[in-house]
Amino acid sequence: MHIRVLGAAAGGGFPQWNCSCPNCWRLRLGQFAGQPRSQAQLAISADDVHWFLINASPDLRSQIDAFPPLHPLRLPLRNSPIAGIVLTSAEVDAALGLLLLREFQPLTVYATGAVRQILIEDNSLFEVLKRLPDQVHWVRLIPGVAFALGDHGLKCIPVSAASAFPGFVAPARAAQLVDSEAVLGFFFEHGGHRVAFFPGAPCIYPEWLDQMQTCDAIFFDGTFWSDDELIRLHGDGKTARQMGHHPVTETLTALSDLKARKIFIHINNTNPMLDEESDEYRTVRSAGWEIAFDGMDVVL
Amino acid sequence: MHIRVLGAAAGGGFPQWNCSCPNCWRLRLGQFAGQPRSQAQLAISADDVHWFLINASPDLRSQIDAFPPLHPLRLPLRNSPIAGIVLTSAEVDAALGLLLLREFQPLTVYATGAVRQILIEDNSLFEVLKRLPDQVHWVRLIPGVAFALGDHGLKCIPVSAASAFPGFVAPARAAQLVDSEAVLGFFFEHGGHRVAFFPGAPCIYPEWLDQMQTCDAIFFDGTFWSDDELIRLHGDGKTARQMGHHPVTETLTALSDLKARKIFIHINNTNPMLDEESDEYRTVRSAGWEIAFDGMDVVL
Repeated sequence: MHIRVLGAAAGGGFPQWNCSCPNCWRLRLGQFAGQPRSQAQLAISADDVHWFLINASPDLRSQIDAFPPLHPLRLPLRNSPIAGIVLTSAEVDAALGLLLLREFQPLTVYATGAVRQILIEDNSLFEVLKRLPDQVHWVRLIPGVAFALGDHGLKCIPVSAASAFPGFVAPARAAQLVDSEAVLGFFFEHGGHRVAFFPGAPCIYPEWLDQMQTCDAIFFDGTFWSDDELIRLHGDGKTARQMGHHPVTETLTALSDLKARKIFIHINNTNPMLDEESDEYRTVRSAGWEIAFDGMDVVL
Repeated sequence: MHIRVLGAAAGGGFPQWNCSCPNCWRLRLGQFAGQPRSQAQLAISADDVHWFLINASPDLRSQIDAFPPLHPLRLPLRNSPIAGIVLTSAEVDAALGLLLLREFQPLTVYATGAVRQILIEDNSLFEVLKRLPDQVHWVRLIPGVAFALGDHGLKCIPVSAASAFPGFVAPARAAQLVDSEAVLGFFFEHGGHRVAFFPGAPCIYPEWLDQMQTCDAIFFDGTFWSDDELIRLHGDGKTARQMGHHPVTETLTALSDLKARKIFIHINNTNPMLDEESDEYRTVRSAGWEIAFDGMDVVL
């Protein structure tokens, strides 16, 4: 199983276009001990030939361009080694990239019923994916029900990770949808190996811990260092948990006993652990965690 | 007046993610005499301090990052020199980038009523631009009616360039909208200088020619070399004109008498003139035209 991190940042990326927080400001000045990151995006393959995208970030065009295994073959004139796209949620930073895959390419998209409804029933833009008959084959994900990704033995188990729909979904619309289908986490399995991917999770359920005990690698929500990170910076706003994210400080403790390779992903531009000269970076690394970066490979 | 080309390609960019046409294939091999291009995007300023984006391409995040004058100042923590965004149409490659400008930043967006309706009435995703009260101020453009871009003397005259709405707009919806508001071209004026921007135009009206006679620079639709470019390549599909684009071969003749600096923009990945060793490139250059590229500056 080959997992490639195509992007490691939270929504907006790092640096963020209109942000002058200490991280973004110093990065632009060339005075930051750390690298820029595009929005969180994985590619995963069991055979290094057929690839599945985990989420579809707004940076997907440049992310595909930067990773040659995702480039098309010589013929036919339109083709792609991307065999499918698996969505965790309908958030802009998780799903907008679907609209970048619009050039007459047949696609299989794996998503919950609620995520599919939000995207294609409430957004006419998604009609761009209907230029061919049956251009997109939607496969409905049900939390707890495993499914095969392609024919090469790659298995995926989706679990419900949070019940809050994106802020752009009106409350009346959200009330029509199934809460447990709002945000997913995934376990991927192949050849006796197991990997967890939870880029957004406001809390950690005991049953996940059981599943994570047997994982070789865990990619977990690294959005915010502390629960009040944005409030401290801007003087107002929401807590990390209110935005659907478990603070890194508490995750370090909660997942400390797992023997897997532990990797923070979906890291917000304001998170101090991005700075490799910071105390927060040293704390994370000395606790045995890694911080995902664009171009990181995990091969099992 | 400073015009910066942040992107010069048509929708999908160059190379395009699933395309193995001769241009894309050779570019990826490093055997192409020409450069990659992101999706068409201009920035324009009268004072090199306040900037207006012309369209909002899906590549906008990296395009802003690549042009330091669009970076925020040190304080306040969220700010931007981008004073407004002017849209030619509701096409994905012209408007999707609005969703990338979603981080609590007050914005002024200039668009026709029809374009605004398609985007915000038919797409719940655009609710992400309502995280603050009055976050986006929509200014309604009416073809033929000039308006001021900011307070620094920059003037814009929108003209109706085509009457076809994007393919993702259902015919029943399109029937409710004003045809002349589907696609705009612009004339920008400042300090006695005038620039035209027509990235998508299926034909050239005589009244444009009158206006273009007094232009210093003209950015014109360079999408397709010939009317049957895609049909020749793929064996089927639509003509350039059916897709809303005047073929370069015919534009060379139609605009030959204009004394302005003439620049093709919105260039499709399949267009042979992208290859600087091609006959088509030599034909265009010897006719006195330029081919826009990412990072091109026009200063008047």
